[in-house]
Amino acid sequence: MADKIFRVNMNDLSVTIEDVPSAWQGLGGRALTSAVVAAEVPPTCHPLGKYNKLVFAPGLLSGTRAANSGRLSAGAKSPLTGTIKECNSGGTAAQLLARMGIKALILEGVPTDNRLYGLQVTVNGVDIVPADELADSGNFTVVEILEKQSGKDCGLLSIGQAGERRQLAANISVKDPDSKFRSLGRGGLGAVMGSKGVKYILIDAAGAPKSIALADEEKFKQAAKTFAKALLDHPVCGGALGAYGTDVLINIVNEVGGLPTRNFRSGQFDRHEMISGEKMAEIIESRGGKPKHGCHAGCVMQCSQVYVDKDGNYITSGFEYESIWAMGAHCCIDDLDLLARADSIMDDIGVDSIEMAVTIGLAMEAGIIDFGDGPGFLKLLQEVKEGSPLGRILGSGAAVTGKAYGLTRVPVVKNQAIPAYDPRSVKGIGITYCTSTMGADHTAGYTVATNILKSGGFVDPLKKEGQVELSRNLQIATAAIDSTGLCIFVAFAVLDNEAALPAVVDMLNARYGLSLTIDDVTALGTSVLKTEHAFNQAAGFTNVHDRLPEFFVDEKVPPHDAVWDFSGEEIDEFWNF
Amino acid sequence: MADKIFRVNMNDLSVTIEDVPSAWQGLGGRALTSAVVAAEVPPTCHPLGKYNKLVFAPGLLSGTRAANSGRLSAGAKSPLTGTIKECNSGGTAAQLLARMGIKALILEGVPTDNRLYGLQVTVNGVDIVPADELADSGNFTVVEILEKQSGKDCGLLSIGQAGERRQLAANISVKDPDSKFRSLGRGGLGAVMGSKGVKYILIDAAGAPKSIALADEEKFKQAAKTFAKALLDHPVCGGALGAYGTDVLINIVNEVGGLPTRNFRSGQFDRHEMISGEKMAEIIESRGGKPKHGCHAGCVMQCSQVYVDKDGNYITSGFEYESIWAMGAHCCIDDLDLLARADSIMDDIGVDSIEMAVTIGLAMEAGIIDFGDGPGFLKLLQEVKEGSPLGRILGSGAAVTGKAYGLTRVPVVKNQAIPAYDPRSVKGIGITYCTSTMGADHTAGYTVATNILKSGGFVDPLKKEGQVELSRNLQIATAAIDSTGLCIFVAFAVLDNEAALPAVVDMLNARYGLSLTIDDVTALGTSVLKTEHAFNQAAGFTNVHDRLPEFFVDEKVPPHDAVWDFSGEEIDEFWNF
Repeated sequence: MADKIFRVNMNDLSVTIEDVPSAWQGLGGRALTSAVVAAEVPPTCHPLGKYNKLVFAPGLLSGTRAANSGRLSAGAKSPLTGTIKECNSGGTAAQLLARMGIKALILEGVPTDNRLYGLQVTVNGVDIVPADELADSGNFTVVEILEKQSGKDCGLLSIGQAGERRQLAANISVKDPDSKFRSLGRGGLGAVMGSKGVKYILIDAAGAPKSIALADEEKFKQAAKTFAKALLDHPVCGGALGAYGTDVLINIVNEVGGLPTRNFRSGQFDRHEMISGEKMAEIIESRGGKPKHGCHAGCVMQCSQVYVDKDGNYITSGFEYESIWAMGAHCCIDDLDLLARADSIMDDIGVDSIEMAVTIGLAMEAGIIDFGDGPGFLKLLQEVKEGSPLGRILGSGAAVTGKAYGLTRVPVVKNQAIPAYDPRSVKGIGITYCTSTMGADHTAGYTVATNILKSGGFVDPLKKEGQVELSRNLQIATAAIDSTGLCIFVAFAVLDNEAALPAVVDMLNARYGLSLTIDDVTALGTSVLKTEHAFNQAAGFTNVHDRLPEFFVDEKVPPHDAVWDFSGEEIDEFWNF
Repeated sequence: MADKIFRVNMNDLSVTIEDVPSAWQGLGGRALTSAVVAAEVPPTCHPLGKYNKLVFAPGLLSGTRAANSGRLSAGAKSPLTGTIKECNSGGTAAQLLARMGIKALILEGVPTDNRLYGLQVTVNGVDIVPADELADSGNFTVVEILEKQSGKDCGLLSIGQAGERRQLAANISVKDPDSKFRSLGRGGLGAVMGSKGVKYILIDAAGAPKSIALADEEKFKQAAKTFAKALLDHPVCGGALGAYGTDVLINIVNEVGGLPTRNFRSGQFDRHEMISGEKMAEIIESRGGKPKHGCHAGCVMQCSQVYVDKDGNYITSGFEYESIWAMGAHCCIDDLDLLARADSIMDDIGVDSIEMAVTIGLAMEAGIIDFGDGPGFLKLLQEVKEGSPLGRILGSGAAVTGKAYGLTRVPVVKNQAIPAYDPRSVKGIGITYCTSTMGADHTAGYTVATNILKSGGFVDPLKKEGQVELSRNLQIATAAIDSTGLCIFVAFAVLDNEAALPAVVDMLNARYGLSLTIDDVTALGTSVLKTEHAFNQAAGFTNVHDRLPEFFVDEKVPPHDAVWDFSGEEIDEFWNF
């Protein structure tokens, strides 16, 4: 059965199932969401209006037994940044959609009423059902109610209160194998889903094949084995990430002076050990939580965890370095239990934990609460949950909060909050923040790998030399990886193990009966970036939007007293390819 | 004594007095503020940061006896729009500064402490004095306290609570001859003044000549007489504006279906007569207020008024059509007494009455209060005054409020609220909103004159033909007039009376000993626009920012069922000169 595209029009509540146009047949994940958005969404449209579309697409390898291939991409014009946007996430949805032969699910239009709907996706199509009874529910309530109706095996995408309110920091939650959530986090795609009146998308794979048909079973098996071995052999993929989660980075990034502290006033947090991955592992082990956990079937890295309280009760999972940094060092809060509770609340409300916590750091900058005030942090999340005026401000993210309070030290690029690596002392990531097609986004070209972790060589993080090229190469590679459905953490193995990338290409060829080369994969990444960049230019973005806020130029950050010292011309060189 | 430029650096609290560079000697008002901003402010800087500058400049004819020549220009990079900005206002400051030989007063830098300062400007320079005791005071308190110290003859520029809080809707108030306020209204320049820690600028002209030295006294006298006669002979300048104020437009614009009602859902307000200029004149006369009032000495039009309550007590003055429209038809409130009180509160807080009232209409759109809820309107102004979270949102203007509440019907161009003429049914003004160098601004090229009032001919407001050229010609002429210090309302006479423009040129020549031609004045206007446009392009604005929100394209507005039907290419033709 050939893959199909499912379209849901929320204006007239109609559903159509289409063949995949030939131009899109070789695409998946980010390559496909960006192609659809670029082809069908007017770049200057209002992101919450009827012309925007929200596209979900499993990656090219999703649904297969390829290790770590369960990522789902979501794309749209972002209401936060105004740029094109792709997010990807683990959880079970991508694998289910792929098995069901759904190449993409495209939500179009906005309802003519103010009602809330649920979409129930099966192999036969999509039922659009009323969901008013779930209005103002958090994601945990949504999953609980829907699993009672549909069982634990269903896939689920949902939005919390923030998405319903079309808040710019709203994310889309993706159910994981334990009925907890991963997130299509950044850029406010939850607001786009909310604008379309869709509270949830339930995925019921009944009747779908149990496995994906492969053009060459044996070749796939061999390549998958090589690939999995490359992951397991790597000290990051097969070691540190599983042992300590992504939070292993706290001590490492602090050590090199790149851990933004107190709203980017320092690159080191004196209490970094209190929020480190090592500390987290110690707490989890002492309380009987799970130090390792996968966000989707087939993950061999297990960078997630189950964080429990002193009585062994679940608090949160998917408790990531960037979220912990934002709540911790950025806001100067050192209580990991409190951060875990806050993380869970953000999952429930459905807000991007980076955007939200960076924004609360700005609330501290504005004097609404003090830096270090953990209970105050929780109180502000409650405001967001309730949709109070203050919650409306904070739920709109860092840039809006900066405007409402007249702040000048607002760490954003294209209105998206700068994440967990100081661009002055990790200069490669600064180039990625500037030039990423979707605002400040560390995942778009994770130079931290080479700047700090010395994966794929070493480029000195404090020097300008080589950073533009490094960021460009990684952004191209990432755009390709984001299209395969593979987790971005496979990049460590790809950078350091010569067998890894050929194995990925072999898996693609064996899956689809193609004869792609490594160059073809690079070309795909290049094409994705250029498509996205062209969309942004048509939306009114120019090279001067590829800049960091001026305080990074003016303020030296300890311990290296580093400043952001790239000229505009040097940054603009990024797009010269 | 040659004119000087006074510079005040708020970073080190220093003052310098400079000769006027030759390139700026022929400039005044808007031409000068825009030249200074373009030359000295980095286009991509943070508008509330240390690199922005706030420039005040009297017009080229300010301080002379030329009728209606008392306008003061203020310029900066706007925190609301991100573009270059020029506002101009009546009041007494321009004439005082001109008499004191102050060609421009430039505020630079931001304080290193959080203190509040006052600037006391004399012929000898500027004293920077602490003003902490005025923190959180409204403008009426500021003027009362300062006049006690310095007498009624002082000039005064000040900011209210909104400016201190660096709110994007904050304006700068300019004292008029009766110790009430006119406003440098749009674009949030009050926030720029607040960011510089300057609560007020007191102007003490002691020691200055009583009159401006003229190169040719007799020629000036003749030209001024001709000019004043042209104004007085014109039915708008010498008739309607004095009789009914600018609010005379309510019935006229309603009649042609261009009065935006209920957040741009209709072009007619069923209760328009209740808020009309005719009604206002009737009320004022019956209560013993003043139907005519000038905002500066030498005004022959007297379009202002003193609006009083039933007991004859002052409520407000400078009670303009655009403010009354925004509070009235836009918000569906028909109680002129309530609107007058709201107008006075906005003067006191120091917010742009257009931006603020359009924004409160969006609060109605969001369901915070109902359309038509006058007491609710006053309550929301109280929130702005207090700086509550809701007040912070509303004080940030229409675009931020739209984001915080996830609205799609947000009438802004370049983040500035669209004023009192529906661009679908008055198409020329739509071209001005799109292409103005400072966001949606009716004064930048007031095509209403020709589209509706048939001044300078007639261009059918409902047809596309001729609108781009009309807007362009008026924007060029306006940029020139805004540089002379003449009130924009002189344009009616200039458009309809062949003697008016030559008289303006003669006055300029007689003032400065020049031999300018009409073409030189047009060239000045062209040059101003091009300077401003170049600044905006360097700040990251492109042609796609020269567009109306999509709902103007999609929604027909009664009674004509008009839509905004210009293509991008047609709009972009504007800059082809």
